[in-house]
Amino acid sequence: MKSRTLRIDEQGLLRTLDQTRLPFERCEIAMASAADCHRAIATMQVRGAPLIGAVGAWGLAFALRDDPSDGGLRRAADWLAAARPTAVNLRWAVERTMRRVRALEPPERARAALDEAQAICDEDVECNRRIGEHGAALLEGGAGGGTLQILTHCNAGRIATVDHGTALAPVYRLHERGIPVHVWVDETRPRNQGASLTAWELAERGVAHTVIVDNAGGLLMRAGRVDAVIVGCDRVAANGDVANKIGTYLKALAAHDCGLPFWVACPLSTIDPLCASGDDIPIEERDPAEVTHVSGRLDNGAVGRLRIVPEGSAVFNPGFDVTPARLVSGLITERGVFPASTDGIARALAGGRE
Amino acid sequence: MKSRTLRIDEQGLLRTLDQTRLPFERCEIAMASAADCHRAIATMQVRGAPLIGAVGAWGLAFALRDDPSDGGLRRAADWLAAARPTAVNLRWAVERTMRRVRALEPPERARAALDEAQAICDEDVECNRRIGEHGAALLEGGAGGGTLQILTHCNAGRIATVDHGTALAPVYRLHERGIPVHVWVDETRPRNQGASLTAWELAERGVAHTVIVDNAGGLLMRAGRVDAVIVGCDRVAANGDVANKIGTYLKALAAHDCGLPFWVACPLSTIDPLCASGDDIPIEERDPAEVTHVSGRLDNGAVGRLRIVPEGSAVFNPGFDVTPARLVSGLITERGVFPASTDGIARALAGGRE
Repeated sequence: MKSRTLRIDEQGLLRTLDQTRLPFERCEIAMASAADCHRAIATMQVRGAPLIGAVGAWGLAFALRDDPSDGGLRRAADWLAAARPTAVNLRWAVERTMRRVRALEPPERARAALDEAQAICDEDVECNRRIGEHGAALLEGGAGGGTLQILTHCNAGRIATVDHGTALAPVYRLHERGIPVHVWVDETRPRNQGASLTAWELAERGVAHTVIVDNAGGLLMRAGRVDAVIVGCDRVAANGDVANKIGTYLKALAAHDCGLPFWVACPLSTIDPLCASGDDIPIEERDPAEVTHVSGRLDNGAVGRLRIVPEGSAVFNPGFDVTPARLVSGLITERGVFPASTDGIARALAGGRE
Repeated sequence: MKSRTLRIDEQGLLRTLDQTRLPFERCEIAMASAADCHRAIATMQVRGAPLIGAVGAWGLAFALRDDPSDGGLRRAADWLAAARPTAVNLRWAVERTMRRVRALEPPERARAALDEAQAICDEDVECNRRIGEHGAALLEGGAGGGTLQILTHCNAGRIATVDHGTALAPVYRLHERGIPVHVWVDETRPRNQGASLTAWELAERGVAHTVIVDNAGGLLMRAGRVDAVIVGCDRVAANGDVANKIGTYLKALAAHDCGLPFWVACPLSTIDPLCASGDDIPIEERDPAEVTHVSGRLDNGAVGRLRIVPEGSAVFNPGFDVTPARLVSGLITERGVFPASTDGIARALAGGRE
């Protein structure tokens, strides 16, 4: 439990690391209300599709302590689910919690919602553990005897989830088993989640890795220095199209052009059967300041930011792109590996889910 | 002449903007020796394949003022040509200058080399003017009546050349003719030449543009918001493979996947018939500090830098990648547009070149 990204302390506060301060500052935030949870999600103090789902569920439980009425339930659920638009886990977790409690009498709702939020967290850990097992089995043979070379984009690691990570779960599993693995870490502009979060958590676990700019992955793949690409996802459409961090599509194209596997680690909660294809997935547009300014540690040791784009220039900052299913080698889910196709997704979901 | 990136002043000093200080500081450097020119090229105070060629030629002329012997000529030429390994213009310009003077008596060499360096500059301006004409004719119809939407990577603009630019020459030509054009500017990590140089020079000329992270171009192309991609190049192999700034290959893949033209602006001096294919082009590996640190303007107005990668993480920083000829729609040269193929390149060079 100690390794979990998210935990409830003795006072009933929901605690996690402030991910906007990593890697140079390690600060915990404590959330005690729906507003705290909403703010943490919207400002990306917590991020990563599975993690924001879990925090959203806790947020709903906190809201019900203040107003457990039908109206209060509906309003809090809508508000929390809208904190970020692209990742479907957030809506999934909030709605699952709402479904769990709405048939109950209002006084019973907050307690039941807290239990459900805890269950979502526990299930996320188990789900990611299984993704780690299935993914490790898939990747294991890829290196042909040498060190397995994995490329990943953004952060779909331990701190994007309650534990283990999604895309990085197989990497951690292989590392635990003593199989030599090295990760090429895309820095992942504009927010640099690769350089600041993936590099940080891989270093913490002692996994060999090298940070590269987002531009460099194509060269590495063409040079035969990558065995497989593995990424997380924010939403998978019913046809297998995958929305993930901006730039994922470019890496999928390069993997395809170089004949390399491109795997998407995909808890079933990230599948959205209501989106027929990637065209239906809303793409979040974010603050231009994420592009014009960069944060990091100054020479004097303080954390600060500086401007890199001249004042007179316009900026466009989409948070995600869609990788068409035809470029995806497979979806690694907690139930095993499925093709990124209408049929594959129907089979993955056939056993039902919460 | 006033608009030229490079000029000789009344004292015979070679003057240009220090491009490592843009866009927030406008500082001129003055070069008076081969060592000055070598340093400016190696530190990227001057950059851009055509511009470093011109500065290399001036550097050789300066060297010959001090030591015009055969040995001095050979040593200076080798040293200058090695200041940066990927762009072939540097070697081309230095060798052209050497060929021009080596049959002369030593006392005549410096004067002849200065004349040759000036001729290289004048020809660069005319060459880029023609690239602008040929490219504008090619792009003109692409927008279907609305604003022409161009995406470019890195900086192949006015300040990458003696004047006009290569990839941006057609954009400036269209803009001068009153044709509405808008440029999506890849920021171009790690050195941010797009955000700091392309955005700056487009703003100076009043050309509409929007800065994006390198990750965003694929999304824009898939969304139909780009009519054509145009980039410069550092070296073109005899089979049409193109070495250009790291990340170019990823944009070529996206253009290909989306059915969009991908043009390479290519002065004949960037063609290297001695490289059979892109595999033979040496790829410069640069200082990891370019990835771990970012430069820009601090909130207090000073220009500074900060660290974005944790100390414990390794970094790999290749400066260029190779785009295979099959992804290139055509090479826009001063002699017209040619296919990126062995045959196309043979035809482009058939009229000979200096």
